[in-house]
Order: sequence, then structure tokens, then C-alpha cells
Amino acid sequence: MKILINPERKDWPEINKRTVFENEELSAICKEVFHSITKSGDKALLEYTKKYDNVDIEQLIVSDKEIKEASEQVSEKLKEAIKLAKDNIWKFHQQQEFKTVKVETTLGVECWQESRPIEKIGIYIPGGTAPLFSTVLMLAIPAKIAGCREIVLCTPPNKKGQIANEILYVADLCGVSKIIRLGGIQAVAAMTIGTESVPAVNKIFGPGNQYVTAAKQYATTLGVAIDLPAGPSEVLIMADQSSVPEFIASDLLSQAEHGIDSQVILCSTSQTLLKDVNRIVYRQLENLPRKEIASRAIQESKLVCLPNKETCVDFINQYAPEHYILAVSDTDFFLNGLMNAGSVFIGNYTPESAGDYASGTNHTLPTNGFAKAYSGVNLDSFVKKITFQKVTEEGLKNIGPSIELMAEAEGLQAHKNAVSIRLKLLKS
Amino acid sequence: MKILINPERKDWPEINKRTVFENEELSAICKEVFHSITKSGDKALLEYTKKYDNVDIEQLIVSDKEIKEASEQVSEKLKEAIKLAKDNIWKFHQQQEFKTVKVETTLGVECWQESRPIEKIGIYIPGGTAPLFSTVLMLAIPAKIAGCREIVLCTPPNKKGQIANEILYVADLCGVSKIIRLGGIQAVAAMTIGTESVPAVNKIFGPGNQYVTAAKQYATTLGVAIDLPAGPSEVLIMADQSSVPEFIASDLLSQAEHGIDSQVILCSTSQTLLKDVNRIVYRQLENLPRKEIASRAIQESKLVCLPNKETCVDFINQYAPEHYILAVSDTDFFLNGLMNAGSVFIGNYTPESAGDYASGTNHTLPTNGFAKAYSGVNLDSFVKKITFQKVTEEGLKNIGPSIELMAEAEGLQAHKNAVSIRLKLLKS
Repeated sequence: MKILINPERKDWPEINKRTVFENEELSAICKEVFHSITKSGDKALLEYTKKYDNVDIEQLIVSDKEIKEASEQVSEKLKEAIKLAKDNIWKFHQQQEFKTVKVETTLGVECWQESRPIEKIGIYIPGGTAPLFSTVLMLAIPAKIAGCREIVLCTPPNKKGQIANEILYVADLCGVSKIIRLGGIQAVAAMTIGTESVPAVNKIFGPGNQYVTAAKQYATTLGVAIDLPAGPSEVLIMADQSSVPEFIASDLLSQAEHGIDSQVILCSTSQTLLKDVNRIVYRQLENLPRKEIASRAIQESKLVCLPNKETCVDFINQYAPEHYILAVSDTDFFLNGLMNAGSVFIGNYTPESAGDYASGTNHTLPTNGFAKAYSGVNLDSFVKKITFQKVTEEGLKNIGPSIELMAEAEGLQAHKNAVSIRLKLLKS
Repeated sequence: MKILINPERKDWPEINKRTVFENEELSAICKEVFHSITKSGDKALLEYTKKYDNVDIEQLIVSDKEIKEASEQVSEKLKEAIKLAKDNIWKFHQQQEFKTVKVETTLGVECWQESRPIEKIGIYIPGGTAPLFSTVLMLAIPAKIAGCREIVLCTPPNKKGQIANEILYVADLCGVSKIIRLGGIQAVAAMTIGTESVPAVNKIFGPGNQYVTAAKQYATTLGVAIDLPAGPSEVLIMADQSSVPEFIASDLLSQAEHGIDSQVILCSTSQTLLKDVNRIVYRQLENLPRKEIASRAIQESKLVCLPNKETCVDFINQYAPEHYILAVSDTDFFLNGLMNAGSVFIGNYTPESAGDYASGTNHTLPTNGFAKAYSGVNLDSFVKKITFQKVTEEGLKNIGPSIELMAEAEGLQAHKNAVSIRLKLLKS
């Protein structure tokens, strides 16, 4: 790992820099795929699946029979674990339900917000060696609580045209309405445009590689919303002498195993701690099945020593980590100073894995410094807040003259007229 | 206006279609402008202002002296009107402040959300003949309530290099930190990248023409968030025999005067009402100073007659109007059926102008059908909700084994290890 001792502030932006992807070429591919699917629908989807996933599939939609059979293959022990996670995620997100409050801003002028579900949402789950069923939990559960009417899930099939048992089980458990074996740009395009088998949705959620990310970005230009701009996953750990170096090392590695581009940073005022952790990381790394991936991410990762707690807070806010582990004795100081982060893990017994799976918080979070402006996925992500106003005759008498003056000053006479014509009737 | 009697459902998408802008050429211009500003900073800004706004300016930043002088030019009557609007907007948005609730999802596992302001925000206010100071109110007030540390406002100068008095007065009144005379793509680029005079911000708000819209879209690819994808403004009015045709006509026209591409729709089950309104619209149109613009928008606008209330609700939800005026006796029926809208105006004495200026709700709203997936601007738009979790030793014993099982099933051994290593210590 790279050890940086008291880096100067002018060098922070360089330390905090994330990998940048050139996106222009991808955008051209997206354009072509979206165009073909608009033209040929399902037929194009089957062709792209043959081309990119190297498999001939007959049915895009996964049948009830397949779901039932897959669910039977999942062990009871794993099912119990998943149900515990589901309960916690449900509890935490249900509590986020919006409560309407009416405000009388002026006598006779009542304003309020109401929440309405986004009607149709799409969930993308990447394929590959590991079946990321935990992401199905994180996206389908709040969609269900919000009351979304249609929940479409796309995930690429393996070489035999199948989808992992765990994904099918969890999708069914959480009330996904339709599961489609479809991955990559074509999946995002299908959910944007709609085909014979795939319904068009209003918002697309979920992680993916750079193709999926580019496709989601492209979808936004066609009027479909997306959850978050994506980037490689990251963790920043702030630790002091009260922390346990073995724990810290294991947390750094759990981030590092995600991919070679994972961002891993440990911040402390203690050089001794940094050196201890560095040694332990390499020891723990030896026994990991994903050692190859993790060691490459670890090579690029940074141990940052800063002179005092205040400087640490500034550094962390500038980095704006997706995951932020706080293993310090003076927790309150760091929480009070915190401006930018996706999700925060407090204390020695709160590993990032807790939030990844089962504490109840959502694991779909802003990477790449986006925590400066974006929240992670939460119940709000699945609803719209609509504003309402009701003005009585009395109310219009109270605010009408102000509206008339302001509309006139903006040169919008018809806006003024809409008030004047009403006030006139009230006076007559 | 176009009168459509009982259009078939299959024709609704065509009726509901909005103008589509070809965006590719604009994206190339954006790329060039962003590149120049990255390279030459303020110097490039002055050059673009010369080129596009046709004015030589010396100082990008508006001085305190200018602001003071401008404010003195605004009439006391208008100032009073603006203060009433400010109070109402403040009250309504302040009530939206987030309250943290802690949830113990499992014994020893505590989860919660906290809200933090977005540190630096940018506001874009278009130039032109009408000084849109009401939009300054709508964006600066919630930013101030949220606690944003820096509020930068860009607006293009007129041919003399000046900015409208009202805009300067309102910006100052609402606590804008820096006012820059700068418009178009170059303004959005400057707030994205940062120059000697213009601070880089985390999120950009505000309306604009297709250049500004394209620049905001481009900014998102560089990690800056934006408020909403933009499109021409729209109103849909649902009216029955309890409505007042003169009022309806004035509301349709107040939307139509915004621009020739304004979307204006009136929906009813009564043909008589539609015909009455049509007649009155043309009569009212005669006296408008912006008659030229409004009449072109009115030409394209639609009076839609549908067979019953249920069909109206379906039609309206499919259109997903930015502004939705409900002038009916059976308000509850329509509110219960409502799924998609930006802001709703209830009853004969709630014209759209009320929400545009002074009721207290925000007037920055989703156009172009985006109300299906997006909320309008509200206090949430200026904050991030960060999630927190704190797991005790007891808590980790409760959820740890489930995390281990799930991580293993996803093939993420290091995620499992981070829990196992802690549970092991607890057992020893």
C-alpha cells in the first residue's frame, strides 16, 4: 500500500482523484443498440444476447416454473439469512415513509406535499461469477414499500441461459413482477424503450460495468431517470489507537476484493497504526480466494497520515467516500464535522459488510465523490413528492396583489391577468 | 385551439408527445466551451461573453456597490410583494426539514439517516427581456434553509453589461454569496470547472434555453449534479361545469405566454365547456402584450373531451403535467387517482400564478413527462441524506452469521472475513 505522510493540501486533489472512464466510444455503441431495439424489439435482444453473452435463448422472460425450481435449490440456512436481511432492510426503509404536513403559508393559502410511487421501475443485476442477490434485496424492497406497480428485473444469463438460483429466489421473495434474462446495454435499452417481452420503465436502478453505466447515462437523454451515476466502489477508514488493526485490515480487503479498481483509503494521525495495518493486510491477503483482484486494488490503495483530527475531517470531506468507517474513540467529533459520505459505519463492531447485507441501510451509494451532491438510494428514490396548493377567496385577496405586482415586473401580463380577473369577480 | 373529441387510447401517446430537441450538435459546442474554460479560465469567459452576449465586460463579479444601487431602484411596493412571497416560500420549505429517526432493526443494530447540506450550489437565471427574479427566490431560499455554504448565481448581462435591478435585489435579499454576470454554456461550464472568479459548485439549478440545458446535461458527465432535465413549460387543466370559463382561459394563456413551445391542455367531459373556453381564450388574447408568442402556443394547444372522469384520470396520469389545475366539484376523486404531476392547483381561486410566485410551493418542476419519475425542486434538492449504522458486540452476534452466509453465497470471502474475525474475538 502507498503510505503518505502529511501530504500538503495542494496535493489532496491528486490523492482523491478517481479513475476516469472515457465514455465517447461507449456512447456510440449505446446509440446503435438503442436504435436496433427500437426497430426490432425482442428479435434484437436475442441477437445481442447471442453476440455478447454467447448464448442462444428461447424465452427472455423467466417462467414461474423456473423460479420455483430455483428456489428449491437454495439452502434453508441461506434462506433464513436472507429473510433476516430482508426484515431489517424493510424496517429501515419503511420508517422513511413520507408524512404529509399541511402548511398555511398565508391565511387562506394552504400548501403541502404528497408522495406517489414511481409506477414502473427497472432493476439491473450484473451477472458474472458471483450472484449479487443482495442488490435485489436493496432495490426491490423499497420499491415494494413505495408501492411501485411494476418491478422489472434484468440480469444476464450464463452460458447455459440460466440465472443464479439465489437471484431468482430473492426476486420472487421481494415481489419482482417480471424477471428477464438479459444483460448489458441491451437490457437498459429494452427497459428504456420497451419491447414485446420487456416493459418500458420510468426509472432504472442497479450497478453494472462501464457498458451498463454508459447505457444508463444514455437512457437519461431519452427521459428515463436513473438511480445514481456509477463508479468503482470505495471505502475510507478513519482509525485511531482505539481501533483493532486486524479489523481495519479485514475491512480494507473486503473493499479491495470487489475489483482491481476499488478505492481503498485508510486515514489516521498515527503512523504506527498505518504500518501495523499495512503488515496485517498482506498477511490476511494470503488466504483470500479473490487474492489476485484484491492484491491489485491494495497496491493502489493509500495509507494517509495527517497531523491532527481537524485535518482528517477536511481531507475526508474532500474525498467524500461512498463507505466511511469510523473506528475512533472520539466519534462525535468526526460525526459533527462530517459533510460528505454515502454511508457511515461507526465503531469496531460495524464492518462495511454489515451495511452491504443486513444492517438495514441501503448499499446502493454514491461513489466517485458524488456523495458531495447525491444521497444513496432510499425510499425517496422510488417516489415523487408532488406539491399541492389550495387558495380560498380570502387567500387570493391576501396574496393576489403581490402576485400581480411580481408578474408585471417580470413582464408576464397573462400571469397577472389570471389573478386580476378573479379578484375583479370577488370585488363585484 | 385543437378540439379533440373522445380520442382513442391508442392515440394518446401522440397527443401527449412533447417537442424533442436534437442535442448532438449542442453537445459538440459544449465540449469546446468547457475545454476552453478549463484551459483559459476567466479570459475565455470574457471572450465568450463578447461573442455571444455582444458585450465587453470588465468585472465578472457584481460588486456590492452595484447591488446596493440596484436595490435602491426597486420600488417599495414591489419589495413588499417580494417579501410576502419570500416569507411563504420560506415557511413551506422550512417545514420540509428532515428529522432524524433512529431505528433498531435488530437488537444491537441501530440505523438512521442524517441530512447534510450540499456545500456549494450554483443558480442559473436566464436573461432576456423579463427579469426572472421569482426563480431566484425559488432556488436561493431553500439553499439558505438547507445551509449551503456557498450560493453562486450566474445570469447574462444586457448589452450595457448590466443585470436587472430586481435580480440583484432578490439575490442579495436571499443571501446569494456571489453574483456573476455570465450566461449560456459558459456560465454552466464555469460553475462546473471553476475559474479565477467563478467557484466550482457541486450542483447546478435553474432554467435556461436549449444551450443551457445541453450544458447542464454535459456537466453531469463531469460529476456535477443538476436539479432537473428541462423542457418547455406546461399546464394541464381539468375542468367541469363548476369551473369559471373566464378563469380557465386566463390560466391557459398565462402558460401560453411563456414561449411558443409552451404546452397547454384543457381536459373535460363537457364539450360545451371546451367550446366556451376556446371562444374566451381568443377574446382575452387580444389584450396581451405578449400576444404574438401566446397565440402561437395557443394554436398548438389542445382541448380534449373524454367520455368520463375515470378516463380523464388515466389520460392525465399518462401526460404527467408539470402544472395541473383542478377546477372540478369532485376534487377528491381526481386527487385520489393522481399518480403523476409536478404541482397541483386546487379550486377556482388557485391560478397557476399563485404557485409561480407566492403561495409558497416551488415553481421549478418536472416538465416533458418527467413528473413520472422526478419530484420538483424542494428542500431535499439541496441536501444529501447520509445513512449511519452502529452495531454493538451483541448486535454483531445477532446479524453476523447471516452476513457470513450471504457473503459466502455471493463469493465474497473477504466480506465474510470482516465479520468472522470480529466474531472470533468476541468468542475468545
